[in-house]
Amino acid sequence: MFKKILIANRGEIAMRVIRTCREMGIKTVAVYSTADKDSLHVKFADEAVCIGPAPSNESYLKIPNIISAAEITNADAIHPGYGFLSENAEFSQICKEYEIKFIGASPEMIQGMGDKATAKATMKAAGVPTIPGSEGLLESLEQGLGLAKEMGYPVILKATAGGGGRGMRLANTDEEFEKGWHDARRESAAAFGNDGLYLEKFIEEPRHVEIQILGDSSGKAIHLSERDCSIQRRHQKLVEETPSPALDQDLRERMGAAAVRAAEAVKYEGAGTVEFLVDKHGAFYFMEMNTRIQVEHPITEEVTGVDLIKDQIKMAWGESVKEGDRYPERVSIECRINAEDPGRDFRPSPGKITNLHFPGGRGVRVDSHVYAGYIIPPNYDSMIAKLIVTARTRDRAIIRMKRALQEFVIEGIKTTIPFHLKLMDDPTFQSGHFTTKFLEDFDFEDLKK
Amino acid sequence: MFKKILIANRGEIAMRVIRTCREMGIKTVAVYSTADKDSLHVKFADEAVCIGPAPSNESYLKIPNIISAAEITNADAIHPGYGFLSENAEFSQICKEYEIKFIGASPEMIQGMGDKATAKATMKAAGVPTIPGSEGLLESLEQGLGLAKEMGYPVILKATAGGGGRGMRLANTDEEFEKGWHDARRESAAAFGNDGLYLEKFIEEPRHVEIQILGDSSGKAIHLSERDCSIQRRHQKLVEETPSPALDQDLRERMGAAAVRAAEAVKYEGAGTVEFLVDKHGAFYFMEMNTRIQVEHPITEEVTGVDLIKDQIKMAWGESVKEGDRYPERVSIECRINAEDPGRDFRPSPGKITNLHFPGGRGVRVDSHVYAGYIIPPNYDSMIAKLIVTARTRDRAIIRMKRALQEFVIEGIKTTIPFHLKLMDDPTFQSGHFTTKFLEDFDFEDLKK
Repeated sequence: MFKKILIANRGEIAMRVIRTCREMGIKTVAVYSTADKDSLHVKFADEAVCIGPAPSNESYLKIPNIISAAEITNADAIHPGYGFLSENAEFSQICKEYEIKFIGASPEMIQGMGDKATAKATMKAAGVPTIPGSEGLLESLEQGLGLAKEMGYPVILKATAGGGGRGMRLANTDEEFEKGWHDARRESAAAFGNDGLYLEKFIEEPRHVEIQILGDSSGKAIHLSERDCSIQRRHQKLVEETPSPALDQDLRERMGAAAVRAAEAVKYEGAGTVEFLVDKHGAFYFMEMNTRIQVEHPITEEVTGVDLIKDQIKMAWGESVKEGDRYPERVSIECRINAEDPGRDFRPSPGKITNLHFPGGRGVRVDSHVYAGYIIPPNYDSMIAKLIVTARTRDRAIIRMKRALQEFVIEGIKTTIPFHLKLMDDPTFQSGHFTTKFLEDFDFEDLKK
Repeated sequence: MFKKILIANRGEIAMRVIRTCREMGIKTVAVYSTADKDSLHVKFADEAVCIGPAPSNESYLKIPNIISAAEITNADAIHPGYGFLSENAEFSQICKEYEIKFIGASPEMIQGMGDKATAKATMKAAGVPTIPGSEGLLESLEQGLGLAKEMGYPVILKATAGGGGRGMRLANTDEEFEKGWHDARRESAAAFGNDGLYLEKFIEEPRHVEIQILGDSSGKAIHLSERDCSIQRRHQKLVEETPSPALDQDLRERMGAAAVRAAEAVKYEGAGTVEFLVDKHGAFYFMEMNTRIQVEHPITEEVTGVDLIKDQIKMAWGESVKEGDRYPERVSIECRINAEDPGRDFRPSPGKITNLHFPGGRGVRVDSHVYAGYIIPPNYDSMIAKLIVTARTRDRAIIRMKRALQEFVIEGIKTTIPFHLKLMDDPTFQSGHFTTKFLEDFDFEDLKK
């Protein structure tokens, strides 16, 4: 097994990786920017190397500095966490050249999945459903009508030069399509000087549901069921849960099988996530594949009993996937606790944590890198803790989350805790029937105080 | 269901009860002494009532003050936690008279189980094995030899007036018994002016193994398997684990059945614990029954999925036991984190916690009432946190405990963390083969620094 792993990241995910390495008996090297010198990951790693000043470009994204840190400390592998260099093909390639094992995807895999068009084509070829579309500009109204018939209404016409909803038309029938075609062309010609349109299937009441997969070097892959990440604000996930309230066991198995098919088609190695949109009819469509650990991985761990970081390390070492697919045995929810003011458009709220108390007791897990007296630097993303609760049913998990949120004390800065408390009380959230657009209509007004 | 529960306790167990009440939608009333005014249980309860000055006799043990607090706040039940009034028959009786439900045993049950001789006789009658003995003073050497033959060697002769090991003799054979008889008589006559001796079966390589039981008002009881509490220092438990490394499934089931028999014989209502000694041959003997929640209850919760405080409340409300016996599905260990200096004979170390960081991540639970800046008063027991870890195997649980202990930062006072870290590295502890006498030979020397 690896003797020493360098963690090319910061914050809670650096702590998370350190924890598993400790349990596996693997030494750890933390890297840090000058802004992070008092960070917990620096204190808890066996060794720590400063890799530059606060701006990420000069430290956490600066490949030569990280490679040097690994060479100086004799690390035989690098765990990139999420964000930063975790899906950087060049970094994966350079690690290879320096014979330092990159605990993540190969350069080719990162590139192939990073390019949306390539990824979509790959998935389509593997028999994974993708969002139907015109694959290029529409040549005529007739071609458009034909395609719409093929993929089935509703469809959406989009201006190729568009943005902000302009030059965009939804059509449920041929008549609406014809009217939309003319309107959108006129509108986009006027707005952008370009009347080119393309066509996509419109996903009704979409939910973001992703499948966790795990593949080994023999080409075998398994899935560990889904995470529902539909509670998003401007494409930023705020709450994740598993199992998804929108899936039944049949759909779960079909989506899992599709994700495994996707992984095996590309011979995926390590932990990855296949993101889907699920519509109100239970049809699902490939969105993208993440070739790294996800922020929300702990909820999968809580309901399946798997240590995903451990499995990542084992797969990178060349071990094979030993067990079969796994299904949730309980319900787990994660709330992202960010240093942001939910009453003021989630504006970042860096600064000193003057008082801190983590919730505890049954079924409560906190993954965090902060402590009382810690100063949150303004340079990085604002997530300061992940609060994960697990219970036998979704109702009980929501109640437990409320209890844990009420216990969570963070003073000195603004956090998303009041938002989460309000969300847990929301009847729509409680019902489980919501889409990715849910927060667009959410009332943030009384979080202003 | 109860609308409001008063918690007649402090510290972590008060927090523990508040957590479950919150999840059940039951309001809580905290009581506190002036020394505890800044305690977390005071902050987290829905209401809080000061019941007197720091000495327990004038507050946490002062029945009229607690009853008044319950009346003032309209609490319809009282949870006594452990210690203090939890096994006080008078308190249970007074609650009854005031029509406030006592979430614990009836006055008769507390009395019956509190008196060792009565409890032993009750258990014997119910067919639960008890430690064989002479039941009174030996009348002659011949009677003693006869009894020893009956119960089987080894036996131990004890001076009725004895103490500190004087007038005590172990005998493995008739010859040793005869010699011991004369020696012990002579010694105790000289030391105490009383040569009366009694006889007990000597328990070889004893382990403390207790069975968690749960009974309802119909007289039905179930067990939730065992907790091994053999890691003790002067009869103070320091570490508990479940399952016990000393039990196989057959012994587990037989001990469980005996505990259920004991509970049903006395029509036990609520959560209780039947404590046994298990000898090296796998024979087990009743020690005592605790008619309250135990400090170490969380490890049972972690491996069985049961919320014991919730079940206590439900049984007190009159609900029935719905499920059958439960067996551990994982391994859970608890370390008691005390404000004590393990290098100086576990001398209490009250004072201000200047810096605090709780461990987190997978499989780690912290039950605690302290926070950074909290001043531990010198008036009460010194336990400041319970660190509970759970994993699939005992080896992994020990590794996880080590990781969590290493992460646990408490500055400003001395704690038992260094002791626990040393224990986790101890080959005898790791082997699972140890007795209640294990810590007598433990080397505390290097904890002095």
